[in-house]
Amino acid sequence: MAERQLITSIERRLGVRGDRFARGRGEDAAVVRARAVAVTSLDTVVEGVHFHRYTHSASDIGHKALGSALSDLAAMGADPGEAYVGLALPRALSGAFAHELVEGMEELAAACDTTIAGGDVVEAGRVSVSVSVTGWADAEEELAYRDGARAGDIVGLTGPLGASGAGLLLLGGAEAAVPAAVREGLLRRHRRPCPLLATGRALAGAGVTAMIDLSDGLASDAAHLTDMSGVALSVALAAVPVAEGVEAVALAAGRDPLEIAVGAGEDYELLFTAPAGAREAIAAAAGEVWWIGRVAEGTGLALEDERGEAVVLSGFEHL
Amino acid sequence: MAERQLITSIERRLGVRGDRFARGRGEDAAVVRARAVAVTSLDTVVEGVHFHRYTHSASDIGHKALGSALSDLAAMGADPGEAYVGLALPRALSGAFAHELVEGMEELAAACDTTIAGGDVVEAGRVSVSVSVTGWADAEEELAYRDGARAGDIVGLTGPLGASGAGLLLLGGAEAAVPAAVREGLLRRHRRPCPLLATGRALAGAGVTAMIDLSDGLASDAAHLTDMSGVALSVALAAVPVAEGVEAVALAAGRDPLEIAVGAGEDYELLFTAPAGAREAIAAAAGEVWWIGRVAEGTGLALEDERGEAVVLSGFEHL
Repeated sequence: MAERQLITSIERRLGVRGDRFARGRGEDAAVVRARAVAVTSLDTVVEGVHFHRYTHSASDIGHKALGSALSDLAAMGADPGEAYVGLALPRALSGAFAHELVEGMEELAAACDTTIAGGDVVEAGRVSVSVSVTGWADAEEELAYRDGARAGDIVGLTGPLGASGAGLLLLGGAEAAVPAAVREGLLRRHRRPCPLLATGRALAGAGVTAMIDLSDGLASDAAHLTDMSGVALSVALAAVPVAEGVEAVALAAGRDPLEIAVGAGEDYELLFTAPAGAREAIAAAAGEVWWIGRVAEGTGLALEDERGEAVVLSGFEHL
Repeated sequence: MAERQLITSIERRLGVRGDRFARGRGEDAAVVRARAVAVTSLDTVVEGVHFHRYTHSASDIGHKALGSALSDLAAMGADPGEAYVGLALPRALSGAFAHELVEGMEELAAACDTTIAGGDVVEAGRVSVSVSVTGWADAEEELAYRDGARAGDIVGLTGPLGASGAGLLLLGGAEAAVPAAVREGLLRRHRRPCPLLATGRALAGAGVTAMIDLSDGLASDAAHLTDMSGVALSVALAAVPVAEGVEAVALAAGRDPLEIAVGAGEDYELLFTAPAGAREAIAAAAGEVWWIGRVAEGTGLALEDERGEAVVLSGFEHL
């Protein structure tokens, strides 16, 4: 079978990181030496929904599929482990496409200390990639969850937002006068998201009370954290860092830069809450962070302008 | 987001089996208390390739997707654990379709002591389901692999073949004079394959030297086991049990019953090798098994007729 030959040829190009992977090449399943706690997430990216073949190379698609899955492990503060890949490809695509896709994934796996330990290849009408990732921890208490935010906590963010959304606007044809290096940076951020695994582990170890990765966008993801924790959370929009070039690209596309920054998603920065007293410990562990809000008794997420008044982001559609 | 509401509503209907699942509902990832060795496999089924919506109900699709993934754990002799589900659905399908699909999966999960611990739902042009399953063992040596067959071993099989292939021929319109109960049995076998988890564990514990599940068909899968073990393997076709009704359906469809039995696949019986001296121990542990061949020095798989001459299965196409 052509699919089995392709799998064998892919397996030969995959490295093994660490000493957990016991066996799996050519087997029914992969065998991995476990630690005490397994942390697993599965994500799927689909052609025409999460990417297009005319805007993303095969390598970009592989990178994006693995990157968005690994970001869930970053948000838990887990150590990276293994990835399992379900590749659905139209018959008309050559083996070269599959190899390039897996190479893009393998490059990120190597950078993230992850072993691509198994998977399958099937025929489908459109390209889609499902990636299941498993990370590890020594105890449940080492991990960060979405439900631990408490009244009095402050709200932190690991980096500027909007780059991925601006990159998508550029792919959609927005013509903005931004320097070539900035433009490339925005496109790369959209096409090849980098999971913040080391930062996530450092934050989980430095006393964050809740954490989530920004896949859907600050507005949506902060709301999940708020709901899961049963608290009220307010974000001072003026304190939210916006990535370089986002304003110019948004305006060129006739969009509100703030809506791109807080609504477009796929930035994969980490949003977290922590006791006010942990501020220094967190900065020492995770490097530069932005403090953008606070947690109070109550329910619901409020996005506030400089006068503390609620901002309604109308007209925003998920990109 | 509608997808998130759907996920929440699905999560509410899922049970938790055993005490491994620590948390995961509403989180970035599922957290599971591990045993020493994790065994993981990911499988994808795609509409138009592995099933059609006019031949498989949503419940059948869910059952089939989970069943084929769990069968890989059965072939390793692992204890079942968790499943992670990536559901890709056309926008035109209602939430009822997704719920019915997951209910079919959950019914099998309950029967197989498996917790559906996570997953996602995305939009796609056609229905596809990726399932990653993780099973557990206390030591690598407890598991069975494909590469352990040795010269002198005998070759065993857990049950009659061809039922799934005959079921597919019936779905394709074959008109065979078989009793209604037999017909229903063949259809059910194709639509709702049952992973032999308990049998696989019993066999792994009773001294099998190599094992594989019959997903592609005896001819293909025995060849993988042969190649991985670096041995020669011969199967006496006259000794291979064929399921009731297969002959009648194959002949009605103008097909060779033997080719359906050994080539059509998706029966999910287990094929294994064992030292001749383990014959009684294996029968005691796993119940009725069929001894269908032997392992010798050399390479390659031979399918032999009653005179020991090689049979070439020409004209067979994978269904």
